[in-house]
Amino acid sequence: MPYGDAMSTRARSEERRAEIVRAALEVIAERGYRGASMAAVAERVGLTQQGLLHYFPTKDALLVAVLKERDQWDAVPDSPWRLDLLASLVEYNAMRPGIVQTFSALLGESVTEDHPARAYFTERYGRVRATMTEALRSEHGERLPGGLTPERAAVLLVAVMDGLQYQWLLDPEAVDMPEAFRDFLGLLGGTGESG
Amino acid sequence: MPYGDAMSTRARSEERRAEIVRAALEVIAERGYRGASMAAVAERVGLTQQGLLHYFPTKDALLVAVLKERDQWDAVPDSPWRLDLLASLVEYNAMRPGIVQTFSALLGESVTEDHPARAYFTERYGRVRATMTEALRSEHGERLPGGLTPERAAVLLVAVMDGLQYQWLLDPEAVDMPEAFRDFLGLLGGTGESG
Repeated sequence: MPYGDAMSTRARSEERRAEIVRAALEVIAERGYRGASMAAVAERVGLTQQGLLHYFPTKDALLVAVLKERDQWDAVPDSPWRLDLLASLVEYNAMRPGIVQTFSALLGESVTEDHPARAYFTERYGRVRATMTEALRSEHGERLPGGLTPERAAVLLVAVMDGLQYQWLLDPEAVDMPEAFRDFLGLLGGTGESG
Repeated sequence: MPYGDAMSTRARSEERRAEIVRAALEVIAERGYRGASMAAVAERVGLTQQGLLHYFPTKDALLVAVLKERDQWDAVPDSPWRLDLLASLVEYNAMRPGIVQTFSALLGESVTEDHPARAYFTERYGRVRATMTEALRSEHGERLPGGLTPERAAVLLVAVMDGLQYQWLLDPEAVDMPEAFRDFLGLLGGTGESG
């Protein structure tokens, strides 16, 4: 097979994978984490289940690919991170329970032994803490108004985002996730309650 | 069957359930969430798997019973709650990754549709937020030094505890859970960094 054809085969395969990930995200948004079966995703992209397994050997592998894709959308690489962008992200998340549910369910599973998503989450949290630390440092210097260093504030920032998602998913009427997150930003910034 | 015998049958059954729950907790502590199979628990209490299913029809039902038991131990019903007791609880949790892992894994699963643990967690979080709100109110009145009302601080307190557990379980070397929690108490109390 000529080299050019090999390349375009690979490119087609990449395109197909991207199409599957988009379809999985749609199915998740419509039916939630449990409803997002491999069969439903295969049907949406016109593959047999066997054909889908060629691209993603397990449901977990497909879900990790969906979360990595989400990480890329949510990153704001060309502008300096600001805390109010994070507040917008939390507001946006409050409008897409399907993907938040998928993230939260898979995060829960990932802390068990030898889970296929464990490496993804461990790496992701290291990276996210580092990114947030830099964002906090560029906005506040070595000490935030509330008194914490950027490193120690970053751990809490991530913890609050994740922890609020569980309370909100379980009882959306009882927990106003964006409001609670703004409250926390107020504590970090030393400005007290925001609303 | 005379009434007295019926009662003692029920009492024996309750005792047996409690014994199974204790055995499950031991197995979880030794082998983690995934390793805690129904077979391992049955063996420890000298039951067949079929016999165990008579008491707990599914692994999830058994795990929920374990978490409810833990809630009872961790509650401090006869003394007023204080925030420094919570800091001690977080330090204690950092020494028992097995039960924290079980809690975190089951919480993750519970946010999916129709999960058997969903009702337990939804009820638990409502109760825990109410308990913490009362504790914060009795310690600080209607406004915490950091500026929040007890209700709004309670949501964040729970979120931080849960969120830190995920980061710590994934990477215990990188995340000092008790230190981070004390940092958060410092923010709530308006005292800045504690360490």
